[in-house]
Amino acid sequence: MTKKLQSNAVQSYLDEHKDEAQHLLERLCRQRSVAAQNDGVEEMANLVESLLAENGFSIQRLTVDDAPPVIFGEIRGRSPFTLLLYNHYDVQPAEPLELWDTPPFEPTIRDGKLYARGSSDNKAEIAARLTAIRALRAAHGELPITIRWMIEGEEEIGSIHFDEIAQKYAHLLQGDGALWEGSGFDEDGRPSLVLGCKGLVYVQLDVQGVGVDAHSGNAPILPSAAWRLVQALASLRTPEGKVLIPGFYDAVMTPSEAEIEALASQGDHEELLKKAFAVETFNDNLTGIELRKRQAFSPTCNIAGLLSGYTGEGTKTVLPAKAMAKIDFRLVPEQDPDDIVAKLRAHLDAHGYQDISITTFGNAEPVMTPLAHPFAQRVAHIAEEYAEKPVSITPLGGGTLPLLGSMRKHVNLLGLMAPGNAAYWGSAAHSPNEHIRLSDLERAVSYNCYMFTALAEE
Amino acid sequence: MTKKLQSNAVQSYLDEHKDEAQHLLERLCRQRSVAAQNDGVEEMANLVESLLAENGFSIQRLTVDDAPPVIFGEIRGRSPFTLLLYNHYDVQPAEPLELWDTPPFEPTIRDGKLYARGSSDNKAEIAARLTAIRALRAAHGELPITIRWMIEGEEEIGSIHFDEIAQKYAHLLQGDGALWEGSGFDEDGRPSLVLGCKGLVYVQLDVQGVGVDAHSGNAPILPSAAWRLVQALASLRTPEGKVLIPGFYDAVMTPSEAEIEALASQGDHEELLKKAFAVETFNDNLTGIELRKRQAFSPTCNIAGLLSGYTGEGTKTVLPAKAMAKIDFRLVPEQDPDDIVAKLRAHLDAHGYQDISITTFGNAEPVMTPLAHPFAQRVAHIAEEYAEKPVSITPLGGGTLPLLGSMRKHVNLLGLMAPGNAAYWGSAAHSPNEHIRLSDLERAVSYNCYMFTALAEE
Repeated sequence: MTKKLQSNAVQSYLDEHKDEAQHLLERLCRQRSVAAQNDGVEEMANLVESLLAENGFSIQRLTVDDAPPVIFGEIRGRSPFTLLLYNHYDVQPAEPLELWDTPPFEPTIRDGKLYARGSSDNKAEIAARLTAIRALRAAHGELPITIRWMIEGEEEIGSIHFDEIAQKYAHLLQGDGALWEGSGFDEDGRPSLVLGCKGLVYVQLDVQGVGVDAHSGNAPILPSAAWRLVQALASLRTPEGKVLIPGFYDAVMTPSEAEIEALASQGDHEELLKKAFAVETFNDNLTGIELRKRQAFSPTCNIAGLLSGYTGEGTKTVLPAKAMAKIDFRLVPEQDPDDIVAKLRAHLDAHGYQDISITTFGNAEPVMTPLAHPFAQRVAHIAEEYAEKPVSITPLGGGTLPLLGSMRKHVNLLGLMAPGNAAYWGSAAHSPNEHIRLSDLERAVSYNCYMFTALAEE
Repeated sequence: MTKKLQSNAVQSYLDEHKDEAQHLLERLCRQRSVAAQNDGVEEMANLVESLLAENGFSIQRLTVDDAPPVIFGEIRGRSPFTLLLYNHYDVQPAEPLELWDTPPFEPTIRDGKLYARGSSDNKAEIAARLTAIRALRAAHGELPITIRWMIEGEEEIGSIHFDEIAQKYAHLLQGDGALWEGSGFDEDGRPSLVLGCKGLVYVQLDVQGVGVDAHSGNAPILPSAAWRLVQALASLRTPEGKVLIPGFYDAVMTPSEAEIEALASQGDHEELLKKAFAVETFNDNLTGIELRKRQAFSPTCNIAGLLSGYTGEGTKTVLPAKAMAKIDFRLVPEQDPDDIVAKLRAHLDAHGYQDISITTFGNAEPVMTPLAHPFAQRVAHIAEEYAEKPVSITPLGGGTLPLLGSMRKHVNLLGLMAPGNAAYWGSAAHSPNEHIRLSDLERAVSYNCYMFTALAEE
């Protein structure tokens, strides 16, 4: 499953230190670091700092008020190529604890898998990258490339201070290419590459009708918050899914032929998706490349939540005072989250819904590195060489990384997700019994050694 | 506040037995009778049966399977007029108990008020009617009219077996007029009369999209239950409130000039209503008679509840698998609840929403006794004579009484709500600290004596 590396010395080191990444991962997972609960975050920052320092990094803490530090380290390498790595040392809360088979902060091996909160998201990648760096330095006394590594502590709470940090420390975060939290390998062994993420803006719409819930016998004469919300929502989208907010699609870029070809060459997961979501068909009966294009390049206006009045068993004849909807807009390049919220406001106002309030929560720009970008081409080539299989390229991943927008804006650096991570489709990130497969961890270490070495070559 | 009665003997009895109704009410309230919790219902039926039997009624238990008995009693009177009375001996649950100042089943007098669960709804009226009957019999050895009285035990759970009972015992429930749970007197002393109730049909719409909640990154390709519900709901009604279900208004009767005049002569409660519901204006800025007409005669399609996806604090980027709406339709004569549900189904089907399921809960026909009906005219006249003030007539009350439809269908008997009840606007029926004013109870006894006597006159 792993490829023989370019350097015999590095390969020997890995062969002789088979458990090193696992032990490192266990050490990382034993330290709680739940950002949402401020549980162990400081201790985790200290641990990450020590580990990087022990392994030759010169360290700097990147700090702004009220935020845990971003641990930043640098090792100068042999070649002129400078790679910026990103990871995060915080994890999701472990609750509900009763659903874990073993305690979330006591890493446990079962059936070739390591179970712990944060194992897949994303401490395994920290362990894999660090083990690769240790192997390269042990074998050759130096790194083939310069590595700058930033590891933040607020990713799981939306990287709320990252923009400030990227702005303040832009001079440190320069490089010839960046690798975010990585991707992995398909089940058929194809390396996967993700070129960017959709943007996201999450809003809550609130409508207040009467001042208090009223007996519904008064419905003829009292304003209805619930109806007002329904009518306002219905004005936002056609039943077929087209967003009706004027200008919503103005900034949407047409994907390149190469990006569409990349989608076309991906493995076919339609049946898997149908099974996973228990649906018989997809929207508009889409299949094949049309389905993938829709999934990859369509911005959406999704109702994530609806609430008004009585929602229990049976009946209550109430005219609700309030109604609420949560909506997430997934955005594609070059839609701008603030601009979309402004257009939503203008649309509601134009339809007479000035009274409907908009509260904006998360907000992330869509960022995609063009497939034609030299760094993307180079990493794709390295991954194909390593795997001896064609790379599977996702132009825009389904998730959202707010930091991508900050890195583009303040540092003007584009990046990718490369297959150096050890997570897989069944890792249960954010869920009970989160885990990684140890064989994936071994391959991730090997791949990182291979990639760091290959990036040094012209 | 009470009027001198036609008969000195009856007046003397009341003067000499001032506390009789109160003691009777205390006895009724001390017996728990919560239908929803089946708490004390059987004991209450026994108590009501004993009280009626002690006071000269020949008793029959009206029974069907799985229902507490309707206690039915009859006393033959002097004149040929037969009056059917309706009450219920069950009450709402007393919870939340911690909000009661004194225990709900220990009747307590404070500041001229009697506090207990069921005091206003509707044990005070049972006490008032029974005290009036006792006074009339004590004074004259007989009743001026024949009284048939049915007292059921499931009103607070929707009179779920009443239709069956009305059908089975239709021969017993005949009369020259019926009086339901009564109304009272306005704060300015005008007697109020209610001619009927709107109908009600309560449905729940359920939409299933994907089989499980999905990450909202899949929104481009997966069906959305929430959007489907919103679009379906939006097709039911204009933003202005007109119901768009074809045929919805077909059976709506135009109110008579006399009924509109009755509305026009009611007291003006607009400012009170605005304050109660904390609104600045009513729908379409209606005021005066137009507001009252809308309130009285407009059928409605009200959203009582909406639920889908994530409704907590902050954000969750989810594409919900399910969405649900609860809708109550208030119907006016001669709309038919079953017909409205059939038309809703046809409308949804015609718009492609065959997959949206409809669950029907409560279901009550609208029933209104025409103002021109001789019995309505007669009771209105008696009430005006008693109060020496013009009667305030509400053609269709805001609440719903499923039994009215059953009585019309199986017995072909129309009725009214006459001002013989002791509840007032502040009684807190169904709420903690339910109570009646003892002065209202005294007037209710007096009024019932007056009315029973007057109904005997040609």
